[in-house]
Order: sequence, then structure tokens, then C-alpha cells
Amino acid sequence: MATVTTKTGQVVDRANLDAMLRRRLFYTPAFEIYGGVSGLYDYGPPGCSLVNNIIDLWRKHFVLEEDMLEVDCTMLTPEEILKTSGHVEKFADWMCKDPKTGEIFRADHLVEEVLEARLKGDLEARGQEVVVDEAKEAKKKRKTKSKAVKLDDEVVKEYEETLAQIDNFDGPELEKIIAKYDIRNPTTGGNLLPPVAFNLMFQTSIGPSSNMPGYLRPETAQGQFLNFHKLLNFNQQSMPFASASIGKSFRNEISPRSSLLRVREFLMAEIEHYVDPEGGKKHARFEEIKDVEMAFLNRDVQLSGSTQTETMTISKAVETGMVDNETLGYFIARIQQFLLKLGIDPTKLRFRQHMANEMAHYAADCWDAEMLTSYGWVECVGCADRSAYDLTVHKNKTGAQLVVREPRAEPIKVEEWQVETNQKTFGPRFKKDGKTVAAALDALSQELREKLSLDLEKEGKIEVDVEGVGAGKVELDKNLVTIEKRTRVDHVREFTPNVIEPSFGIGRIFYSMIEHSYWYREGDEARGVLSFPPIIAPIKVLIVPLSNLADFRPLTQHLITRLRRAGISSRVDDSGASIGKRYARNDELGTPFGITVDFQSIKDKSFTLRDRDTTKQVRASEDEIVQALKAMVEGDETWEDIRKRLPEFTGQELE
Amino acid sequence: MATVTTKTGQVVDRANLDAMLRRRLFYTPAFEIYGGVSGLYDYGPPGCSLVNNIIDLWRKHFVLEEDMLEVDCTMLTPEEILKTSGHVEKFADWMCKDPKTGEIFRADHLVEEVLEARLKGDLEARGQEVVVDEAKEAKKKRKTKSKAVKLDDEVVKEYEETLAQIDNFDGPELEKIIAKYDIRNPTTGGNLLPPVAFNLMFQTSIGPSSNMPGYLRPETAQGQFLNFHKLLNFNQQSMPFASASIGKSFRNEISPRSSLLRVREFLMAEIEHYVDPEGGKKHARFEEIKDVEMAFLNRDVQLSGSTQTETMTISKAVETGMVDNETLGYFIARIQQFLLKLGIDPTKLRFRQHMANEMAHYAADCWDAEMLTSYGWVECVGCADRSAYDLTVHKNKTGAQLVVREPRAEPIKVEEWQVETNQKTFGPRFKKDGKTVAAALDALSQELREKLSLDLEKEGKIEVDVEGVGAGKVELDKNLVTIEKRTRVDHVREFTPNVIEPSFGIGRIFYSMIEHSYWYREGDEARGVLSFPPIIAPIKVLIVPLSNLADFRPLTQHLITRLRRAGISSRVDDSGASIGKRYARNDELGTPFGITVDFQSIKDKSFTLRDRDTTKQVRASEDEIVQALKAMVEGDETWEDIRKRLPEFTGQELE
Repeated sequence: MATVTTKTGQVVDRANLDAMLRRRLFYTPAFEIYGGVSGLYDYGPPGCSLVNNIIDLWRKHFVLEEDMLEVDCTMLTPEEILKTSGHVEKFADWMCKDPKTGEIFRADHLVEEVLEARLKGDLEARGQEVVVDEAKEAKKKRKTKSKAVKLDDEVVKEYEETLAQIDNFDGPELEKIIAKYDIRNPTTGGNLLPPVAFNLMFQTSIGPSSNMPGYLRPETAQGQFLNFHKLLNFNQQSMPFASASIGKSFRNEISPRSSLLRVREFLMAEIEHYVDPEGGKKHARFEEIKDVEMAFLNRDVQLSGSTQTETMTISKAVETGMVDNETLGYFIARIQQFLLKLGIDPTKLRFRQHMANEMAHYAADCWDAEMLTSYGWVECVGCADRSAYDLTVHKNKTGAQLVVREPRAEPIKVEEWQVETNQKTFGPRFKKDGKTVAAALDALSQELREKLSLDLEKEGKIEVDVEGVGAGKVELDKNLVTIEKRTRVDHVREFTPNVIEPSFGIGRIFYSMIEHSYWYREGDEARGVLSFPPIIAPIKVLIVPLSNLADFRPLTQHLITRLRRAGISSRVDDSGASIGKRYARNDELGTPFGITVDFQSIKDKSFTLRDRDTTKQVRASEDEIVQALKAMVEGDETWEDIRKRLPEFTGQELE
Repeated sequence: MATVTTKTGQVVDRANLDAMLRRRLFYTPAFEIYGGVSGLYDYGPPGCSLVNNIIDLWRKHFVLEEDMLEVDCTMLTPEEILKTSGHVEKFADWMCKDPKTGEIFRADHLVEEVLEARLKGDLEARGQEVVVDEAKEAKKKRKTKSKAVKLDDEVVKEYEETLAQIDNFDGPELEKIIAKYDIRNPTTGGNLLPPVAFNLMFQTSIGPSSNMPGYLRPETAQGQFLNFHKLLNFNQQSMPFASASIGKSFRNEISPRSSLLRVREFLMAEIEHYVDPEGGKKHARFEEIKDVEMAFLNRDVQLSGSTQTETMTISKAVETGMVDNETLGYFIARIQQFLLKLGIDPTKLRFRQHMANEMAHYAADCWDAEMLTSYGWVECVGCADRSAYDLTVHKNKTGAQLVVREPRAEPIKVEEWQVETNQKTFGPRFKKDGKTVAAALDALSQELREKLSLDLEKEGKIEVDVEGVGAGKVELDKNLVTIEKRTRVDHVREFTPNVIEPSFGIGRIFYSMIEHSYWYREGDEARGVLSFPPIIAPIKVLIVPLSNLADFRPLTQHLITRLRRAGISSRVDDSGASIGKRYARNDELGTPFGITVDFQSIKDKSFTLRDRDTTKQVRASEDEIVQALKAMVEGDETWEDIRKRLPEFTGQELE
């Protein structure tokens, strides 16, 4: 992989950038005075403000623009819900423990690390040049040293094949690989215990009696699904509609790494758009975005071993069937529009389709927005068509009617196998489990109903799977239940909506956005600049009085108030530092504009306005400057527009 | 206590109000289709929007207005930090378990419930009228039935005295009371186990090896304290300054009750204002709020058994010493200003001072903003002067310099006992514990140093308490440490700032605000109205086309876009319901304004604008209406102003 460069063509030196971000308190390791905890970070003032601005824009771009129903659901989640969703069983990574040292390794990362070190050693032994993938190296927590040992050609091939598929192995497969290639603790050489599944959810207990196990949610989605019926009512039964949620989620990573990219507590923004599965999942506003061009990396290209993206319009991508449907396509294009507003570099953005084995079995299609950073391509937004899976599993578990019912224009006749319970006997027999058993019967397929009807006829009783009741099976006899083929006139169409889910990792977007905005002014010492778009910048204007003389104070105070009233955040720096130094500090904070208050200002209330990226200045009256700032901050004008309108100030840039 | 009434003098019927809030999805029990979990609620679209608007205003009123440094710290918190802060030991309630049924009772609530039921039974037996405190009843989770049994006069007095002090008993005291008065499970009459402390923090484990116990934070404050030094640097060493944080916190309540008022997961907004303890804690902007009048309920009045508030200006309250200092007073006044902007009824707001035994031992003074609701007086904001406690404990534990150092104008000479460690022997002796031991030595008082110096002289060794090292005590000899009286010229003043902490429970403010805004239009069926101030209302404008005819659509769409551009959120209701019904629905959502689109609108682009509270209407051009809305939403004009400016529309209110 080529080294990642800034917009200005400079090499991104991550150590420098990172030091700057920490110095300026964009973020900082949490609990640092207590030694810190890996994977936990705090956001300081500029980081916090940047995140708030991202969220604000997200809300405008998605929630307000499309009248989405925003909800705020609890993070604490009882176990039962996450059992139904599949998280208790499947939301896990495989880990190996060293029984001697107690060290814990994420199994797939360990295999990767060891095999890569051996391949590197092989190249060294063969006297060949070793090309280091810096992005990959950066993600590693611990560097395993390679030894120059030559491997058989056959072994090299096996290793390479294993590494190519490393994301696809389950625990038993990883166990075999570890045994086969004799993979050990890279530091001590000690043997490891076989991989065990480690659930990535933080567990806790709700209430005082510790009989209600719960977890911190791993995503915001479940709360939205559980409220589906209430939201549909709120929306006056009108379809399609979307819910949206912004909030923290949690993953107990085995070994967090890559700074803000893999953390244990993170902010997500998720949309659940509910769409009728019939009629090809059209979208009423597709027309508005149909000509948006984007870089796609589809499944077939990836299968062929290439990472070559293809640029085309979203309408072509949907027409050719590469993107499954219009609604999914609509959101993919809207995601790109959002990311570009944030200042993401379009040349470092691609949409990668999930491979068949990457997606959940129920998903119809899934695309990730990936951003190129010094860590490599980073998945920042996922956009999946999750079919009717989520609503269906919760409906089947609880019996809640998570469906849409709409009157048919023409009633239809339906022949179907109906299951009817005997009110008199059913309730007394199952008591509090009655609802669960009834829901399980309700969820039986037509085929199974037909078969059960024959069994009931023949045996006089049947057995039905009911999770959570008795031993998971329930016996029913003719006295409890009837199963018959009947004809029903159907006036109402009932369907479970499909879900299109755009899901945003705000911390990853935050980091990628910073890298894409970063460059530095050459000089004796490189001076970092963050070229955030004005709408996103933490502070919009730095006010710089020439010195900290009392004479400047009334004017400075007046400007702050005036700008605040115009909705423009500003900060004053009246420290003794040189004007150049003060601007340099604010270049690092990404402050797009600066106002200098000088002696001329005291005389005629004119000021100079400085642009961060070009360091050019104009001089104009207070009114003109406030008006120009408002126009630029709200995105109506650019600096180029302002420069043409207002007279340039060519006084020296004071260092 | 008198029944609580609305601004319009109507009795608040909480059952009705609550049904309305749930129907309109302001909030809803979380996980309801799974049976729900007490103390956990989700916010639906209007609730979410209302909370966002409260937060937005909070940020403007506090953070932006005073350049506070906003931070966002993690909720996951390692145990060590919460041990230092005292939460692991002290953040607990006392609970009793029924060994037979497994039921768990919060001990103080149980005593209260049982004694009150007995007192009620006594009154019944005496044939006296029983006055029910409805607010108190409403807070109860379970109503214990009273039996008409007469008590001795002496016993009645004892019960009453016990109840008056119920908040002050610790576990052993509650145990004695339970034994003495033979308090049992009210339902079964079974005996209970003695009270045990139940820590209210949710516990979890961070990382895969479960050797790092952690908790979900019970407040946002600790993260702010731990970052003090970094924030001081960010603020270029300038004092005073404040940090601020908005985020979820968690308390594992034993038995949550009172709906949104006592929940397990809640949004907080907290400020930590750092002030120099010397010089009387003056505040530079006190002048701006000195004439704010507020209702105080001070400590002495409470001690005398009264709840009579006294109204005076904040400057008088500070001058007389009732409020400890200017900075505390400044924030108390600012809190009131904030609450009034939200629409809190000033006649239902008081500031109650904490009793000496209510405050932490280190607090200098503490006042709660309390709001009167149908649940009684509810504590919504706390404002405490926490002295130097928090920074001091973390400094002592970690050795981090959580202090301010500023140059003295005049250097001073200081005679003091200095502790010096021997570099050569100290490190090798204590290894990784060295920092902790050194911090403990550093924290020794002058008196103790003097005593230890004598001991060291006499015995050749001393013993020092060092929490967390060995058995909590460390032995030091002359070879490791020297303690001598020396004179030092001090050029730098070093001090630990005191913390003024305004702490807002957003959910409680949210609920109180709704109750204070609630009233209903009399009629065949009472129709609820929420009179939110426009700035806070979830949606500002309802657009109501006369019918759902296609003719109205372009005009409606045009209005939406126009309003969105002006930053005004709107919603269309083109359902078939009557205009009156549609407005009624939005009265319940608190939408302050309505625009009717009728046939006249198609002709001349004029519209009627309706005011929610008066139901009066004006008719004007699109430009005039948008301009009027903007002025009202931004708080520049009121409906009364608009009514005077624009012609009234006297067409019938269409039902």
C-alpha cells in the first residue's frame, strides 16, 4: 500500500498528528493519571465541539430532512432481548489464554501476527526485500520480531492462503490452525490453551436481587426495533418511515488498538428505515440523488482478488443490480453527501460491498463507506438491507404485532392452515406461559401446520418447539388445539417491513475527518493545520487583539457579543504571544477565521479578517465582516467569494 | 399539602397527563413488549426533541456564555477511581431481604411505609379524619393497607419522631428500628433479614481477563476532575474556569418509582467551576445577576420545622452569609434564569439549602433547586460548594499535580518541615509502589511531619499509612528518608482550587417542565395542552391544509422548505381529521403555532397563523408569517406583539 498523503501531497506523519491532537485536547486517554485503560478515551473541548457539530449536521441532513422519528433508548438491556437478537450467542471473538503468564490473545490476530512474522523471516532468509505495509503495522498492538528462517515453498503458500481468509475462521478452525502451525505466545514461546469464545458485551446485573442479567447495548438498533409498533402509531400508520437514534454503545474488545478506531465505548448514530418488501423497495426521493457518482468496490471484484474501485452513478449501480434496490441506493448516496459535507476527501472514500460470508445470513445486501487513513481503509458507516429479520425474531419471541396492516383495495380469498387454541383449556394448562406458546403456534409455517395437522389426527397429540417454556418443547393434544385448512376473505394486507439500516461510527468518522483535513506549513518546524469546513470547525473565529492593552478590550468584548448574537462561536486570545504564534495555535485547532483588532480598529471600527488555509486577509467594517462570516459559516459563500468582494489587507503577517 | 394546580388553576390529574404523555410518545417504558424493566424508559420523538432543545439551551446559557470547557468522558469507570472518590464505600442504600419470598425492600422506605400505615390505622381507630398526602402516596410503589388499630400515645409520638428523621438512619440504626417495632414483609407478615448495604452502581468487568472491575459512572463529575490538569493547560493556566459535561449516568435503584423521577439510567449536565479559595470566592460577573429575586428555604427555617420560603435578591442572600459566597450565589441565580427560560413556573420553584447532616462533610454549602409537582417538591438541580475535596483525594492517591501554580508578586519565606527521600535507596526499596509512597509522604501535614521527625530521630525508623501498599502501612528508616525543618523562598503560590458544582438532572427537569406547562381546555372531554415556550417546543409549527386535496400540496411543500431554511421545524398534518382535531393533537404535543392552508391561500398566498394558547388567529402574507414565526421562536417577539401587528382572522375555529 502506498503511503497516505495529505490534500497538499505531504506524507501523513501520524506520530506528529497524534501528539498535536492530544496537546490540543481533541482527545486524551481516559483515567490517564490512574495509568489509563486501553480502549477508553475522553474528548476534550475541541473534540467535544467537533463531535457536537458532526451530530448536529447529521440530525439536519438525515433526521430533519426526512422527518425521521428520533428516539433515545436505554443502554442497559436485559439479556432476553439480546438472546433474541442473537448477540448473546454470536457477538463474540475467539481468545486464547497463556496458562502460565495469564496473557490473553485474540486468536485471529495472533495467527496473523505470527504467520506474517514467519513470512517476513522467510523473505529475509531468501535475501529478498521486505515491503512493510505501514498501515497494517500501525494497527498492531505488539510487534512480533521476525527471524530469518527459510520456509518451504509449499508452507509459504499455505500461510498466504490462511492469511487471506483470516476473518472467516471460527474457533475450532482457529484451534486447528494454531495446532498445525505450532503457534505460541510470541514473547515467551509458551503453549496456549485452545480458543474460547469471548462475548464482547459488557455484562451487568439490573436491580438488587441479581436475577436480571443485562448488558450494555452493543448497538442502538434493538431499542428502535422494540418500539416499532409505537412509532408506526405515532406516524399515523403511514409507511415508509424511519426511526433514528444517537447514543453510546459498548464493545468489550479483547485488545483495543488503533487509537480511536477500536474502542470500548463509542458514539453511534443509526437509522432504521422501514420499507414495504413488495414493489421492489422503491424510494420516492431517489430522483434527487440519482446522478451522484461514487467509487464502488463490489463483491465480484473483491472475489477476483482486486481492490480496484469503479466509479459510476448510484442510478446505474441500482439499475445493473449491483446495489440491491433503490432505497438502499438512496441511503448510500445520502451517506456520501453527508461525509463530503464534513470535509472527507472524496479521493479517499469508497463503498465496499460485503462478501456473502461477511453478511448475516438474512441480509439482502450490505455496503460499507470506507475511508483511507494512515491505518489503511477504515469502515466508518455501514448500510445494510437487513430484510425482515429483526422485527420477525422479536415478534416470534414476544407475540407483539410488529407488522403493518393496511386495507386491501380488493379483498382476496386465502386458503390456509389455521391453528386455533381452545380458550377453555389452553389458558389453565399453560398459565403465564400461554402467551409464549400462542406466539410460537402463530409463528408456525404453513408447511409445518399441514404436517402437524396430520400428526394431530393420527397421534392425537403433537409436540411443538417453544423456546423458554419447559424443556423447549410443549405437548399439545386435540383438546387444546385444532389445526384445519380454511378459507379466509382477507381485507387487510399484513406484512413485516424490511429494514434498511445506515449505521454511523461517529468516532471513526471523527478520526478520518481529522486526517483528511490535516496538512502542515513547511518551515523550520512543521506547523500543523486542520482545514475543517467552517460549518464543522469547533470554533469559527479567533479574535486577536494586537496586544493585551486595556484599550482593545471594549472592542473585543463588543465583537464577541455581536458574533454570539449572529450564532457564530468565537474565542479571544489576548495572551502576550506574537500574533503569528497565536494564529498557529488556532490553525492546530482548525479555527477557519481570525479577526485582528489593531489601532486602526479603535479609530474606525474596521478589522482584518484572516483565512486559515491561505493566510490571506481582507480589511472591512464590522458589519461587512460579521456578514461575511455568517455567510461562510452557513455555507452560502466561500473565502474566494469574500476575497473578491472585500479589499485585501496586505499589511505584513505578523510573526 | 395542597393539591397541585396548573397555571390556569385546574387540578393536575396525573393519570390523565401520564396517559397523554405515553400516547404522544414523550416517553415510554423500555422493553415493554418483553414485559418492561422498572426504572428504564425510552424517549420517543417529541420527548427526544424536547430533551435536545433543553440541552441546546443549557449549552448556550452556560457553556457558550461563559466559555466553559466541555468534555465528554467515558461512562465505564475502573473501580480504583470510584474507591478514591468514596463511591465504592458510600454510594449505597440499605436493603432487607425476605428469606422466604426472596422479595427485596429498601429498608428506609419499608419502615416509612409500615409506620405510616399504622399511624393511619390509629387515626381510623380513634375515629379521626385521615388526611391523605397525595404527593407522598403517589411516590409509593406498593400501598400497605392500614388496619384500624389504636396505638398508645407514646408509640404515636415515637413513630412520628422516627418518620421525621427517616432519611438520616444508617443500616444498624434501621436494623434496631425494624426489630423494635417488629416491622415485617407487609404482604406476607414474614420476618426479614437485617439490612445490608447495597451499592447503587452497576458493576461490570473491563477487558477479557475480568481482573479489572469497573462500574458505570454514577455522575459525570469524576471524569472532569481527572482531566483538571489538562484543562488548566488548555485554558493557558488562566483561573477561574469551568469544565462542563452532558451525558448519561446510572444508579441501580433498589425499587425505582415515581416514573421519570427515580430511574436507573438518566441524562445529567454538570459543571465543575474551579475557583481560588482565597479572596472570598468572588465572581467577576456577579454584578449582572445581583438583583435576581428568588425563593429561599434556608437551613435554620427547616430546623425550626417550617417550609416557609423567603424571597430576596441573591446579593442580599450572599451579603447576609446565608449563601456562602458570590460564586455559589452567581450560579444559583443563573440556574433560576435557565429554569425560567424553559417555562418552569416561578411560583413552583424554590431553592432549598442542605441541612448540615445532608451534606458531605467537606462541602461548604449546598442548595437544591426544587420544583413543585404532583409528586411533591422534586430536587432537579443541585448546586454545591465541594471545597477542594475532589481534586485533593485524586491528587493524594495518584500524585498527579491537580493544583494551580501562579507566580507571587512578592516572594515569601516559608519555614516548613520538608520530607526528602533518598534517591539511591528509595526506588530500589519500593519499586512500582514508589510513586504511591512518595505521594503519601507528600500529603503529610506539617504537624505530622514534625512528630515523625522526632520519632525518626529517636527510633531510627517511622511508620506511615499508605493505602494500597502492603498492609496499608510502610516502614521507613533514616537511610530512606530525611525530615527536617528548613526555610524556603517561595516564588510560586500553589493551591488546590475549590469546586462549585451545579449539577442538573435533565429527566427531572423535563418532567417538571411538562407538568408546569400542562393545562386543559374544558369541554365534553378535557383536551390537554402543553404550553411550552416556543424555543423549547419539540416542533414549532403545524401546517394544516384544509383537506388532503392535491391542490394544497405544492403550497404546503413550499412552506415546509421555506420554514426549514429559516431554521424553524414544522410538521404537516394532511390527514382526513377535522381541523379542530388536528390542532387538538398538536396542543398535546405542545406545538405553539399552526398555519392553515385554505383556498384563499391558493389565490393570494396568504395564510392564517394560530396561537396554541389563545387559539386566536391572524391572517397575513407568507413573508409576514415566516418573519413573525422567526421572531417568536427566537424570543424577540411574543404572540401579543404579533397580534397587534397583523390583522386578526375571525373565521370560525373549524371543529
